[in-house]
Amino acid sequence: MLENLKIGILGGGQLGGMLIRHAIDLGLHISVMDKDANAPCARYTSSFTCADPKSYEAVLAFGQGLDVITIEMEAVNIDALRELEKQGVRVFPSPDTIKVIQDKLTQKQFLQSQGIPVAPGQAIESRDDLYQYESKLPGCLKKRRNGYDGYGVMVLRTPADIATAFDEPSVLEELVDIKHEIAVIVARNEQGEVKCYDAVAMVFSGEKFILDFQLAPAQLPEGILKEATALAEKIANALQLVGILAVEMFVTKDDKVLVNELAPRPHNSGHHTIEASTTSQYEQLLRAILGLPLGDTGLHFPSLMLNILETAALSANRQEKLRSLLAVDGAHLHWYGKKGSRIGRKVGHVTITGNTMESVVAKAETIRKILN
Amino acid sequence: MLENLKIGILGGGQLGGMLIRHAIDLGLHISVMDKDANAPCARYTSSFTCADPKSYEAVLAFGQGLDVITIEMEAVNIDALRELEKQGVRVFPSPDTIKVIQDKLTQKQFLQSQGIPVAPGQAIESRDDLYQYESKLPGCLKKRRNGYDGYGVMVLRTPADIATAFDEPSVLEELVDIKHEIAVIVARNEQGEVKCYDAVAMVFSGEKFILDFQLAPAQLPEGILKEATALAEKIANALQLVGILAVEMFVTKDDKVLVNELAPRPHNSGHHTIEASTTSQYEQLLRAILGLPLGDTGLHFPSLMLNILETAALSANRQEKLRSLLAVDGAHLHWYGKKGSRIGRKVGHVTITGNTMESVVAKAETIRKILN
Repeated sequence: MLENLKIGILGGGQLGGMLIRHAIDLGLHISVMDKDANAPCARYTSSFTCADPKSYEAVLAFGQGLDVITIEMEAVNIDALRELEKQGVRVFPSPDTIKVIQDKLTQKQFLQSQGIPVAPGQAIESRDDLYQYESKLPGCLKKRRNGYDGYGVMVLRTPADIATAFDEPSVLEELVDIKHEIAVIVARNEQGEVKCYDAVAMVFSGEKFILDFQLAPAQLPEGILKEATALAEKIANALQLVGILAVEMFVTKDDKVLVNELAPRPHNSGHHTIEASTTSQYEQLLRAILGLPLGDTGLHFPSLMLNILETAALSANRQEKLRSLLAVDGAHLHWYGKKGSRIGRKVGHVTITGNTMESVVAKAETIRKILN
Repeated sequence: MLENLKIGILGGGQLGGMLIRHAIDLGLHISVMDKDANAPCARYTSSFTCADPKSYEAVLAFGQGLDVITIEMEAVNIDALRELEKQGVRVFPSPDTIKVIQDKLTQKQFLQSQGIPVAPGQAIESRDDLYQYESKLPGCLKKRRNGYDGYGVMVLRTPADIATAFDEPSVLEELVDIKHEIAVIVARNEQGEVKCYDAVAMVFSGEKFILDFQLAPAQLPEGILKEATALAEKIANALQLVGILAVEMFVTKDDKVLVNELAPRPHNSGHHTIEASTTSQYEQLLRAILGLPLGDTGLHFPSLMLNILETAALSANRQEKLRSLLAVDGAHLHWYGKKGSRIGRKVGHVTITGNTMESVVAKAETIRKILN
């Protein structure tokens, strides 16, 4: 049964690597396509294809002969996936789901059409276009496509900032008064079974819009957490999702919950589920796309996930710092094994578990000192 | 650092697969050699070599260019490993450790030389040789080499059984009066740091000597558990072990602890450490052989590991049975993805976790009914 299925992942980064980690538990055969021959996944499969997931021809060729295709990045060729579906390959999440989400404008329009609260946003065609919205500044400018990890997002504080703004189709969002950022990961299978993980709190680093650390569970009032979960379930059902979806949300100063962004794939707000939950988000994705029962999403203990970004200090003294980190009890290192290093690049994460949130936070402080 | 290390595993079965699962966490590049082109690991690495780990030439060729070699089976060519060591490849556990353990006679002699209590045994050269030990029956006959999962072990109850006994170098052991079988996994690194996991209880299936299920922690008096741990540590230090070692032990009717067998590699008595312990035995092995600090071996919750053997019932109705199993909360399936099926073959395991041993045992009973 499971061992005879041929499964493909578009994208071969660390998310794909963690997906293979859990595919091993089910004895699955995983093929991977990534445009970087040195992508982390390339080492962990006998079936690696070096090609661009945005290429129609490459995705079509990759998918033929597979039973199921999924993604670990949104920037993939939708037309090829639709053609593969016609040929009988199962594509989860569906090409329609990926398409509506991969463009931040259509994503927002979809959410609004479903009555989901979002930060108001304005479609922008080019830099010049921005000048007519000077009165709307300050605002958050997001490229419609291909953003990730803070790339493709910038704040425009004054009209003077427009001169260096993105010059491509984007969305200009109202800057909302944010008290907290949270995320809920929701899974849904073809049978319509839906399961949510507990909401987590996310803290982003200053100017870079890259997740700094994440706490699970989020320490927020029950009512807000329930609302967040209800929104995630509503979106999963509206999309007729098969797979998993990360729903990033803002909690505003007046305790409103607004949906910020969607990701129809494993997400770094769910890394902690590997160690802290009964079923990891990666196993859950595999269960969902294979038509298996969804797993229990219960959280065993408090956890904190800390992203590891490349720094000069880390680069200069990597061996000693990672050794020290590994000596901290309850610190679970995930080192992505990326070739080369660029300051600011995400090179790993560490999930810290413990019996109380206080002990977890204390360990995180120790680890941050080690890494800096 | 970690991403530039080239690590090799001799043997590509499910133990190797679980080791790769944890190698992904450290971003390691893993090469695998197995004589079966369809070995489970073949799918999970870009560097698979189909060759026999008992071949001098094959092991030598495989190891050249690697930084570190380890094993997931004992039946490997020691001379090649020694030559690779001379050439600067690090081999853990050491060839000496593997050599003394891969032969059940030298293993027992080593244990006796260290004052470790064992079941008394007699070297046997061939079937004919057994007739002079008729008075020692009933006894347990174990092939000196290449035994695994109950293969290579048989009980001789009466002299009449000799006619169908193994006709090769073996050890004839006294049948001791066993109350419990337990195992302790111990890890040791080059710096001499030693850490033990809690002792687990093992229950074997009737005539086949194959592990049926395992409970962690073993529900035995503190004194016995302490003695078991002390023996495991003593053996690891005596071997100057670098890696992990499973120490299988008998607890006799009069509460003596005897060492039964050693395995200097990941072992099915430690599968539960993936879900139930802070650090899995697989991560611990990687830490040990890479000179990293050993991880915390604490057990988070009670667990039961149930081996899944191929049966006619499972083979006939695999999809439905595995689906039902996956619907049990806290049941963690590990399906080995072996090609082909043979009745009695180990095709997977399931680790069940819960808040109490009673709830874990109840879930295990449910799962056993599903699988039968």
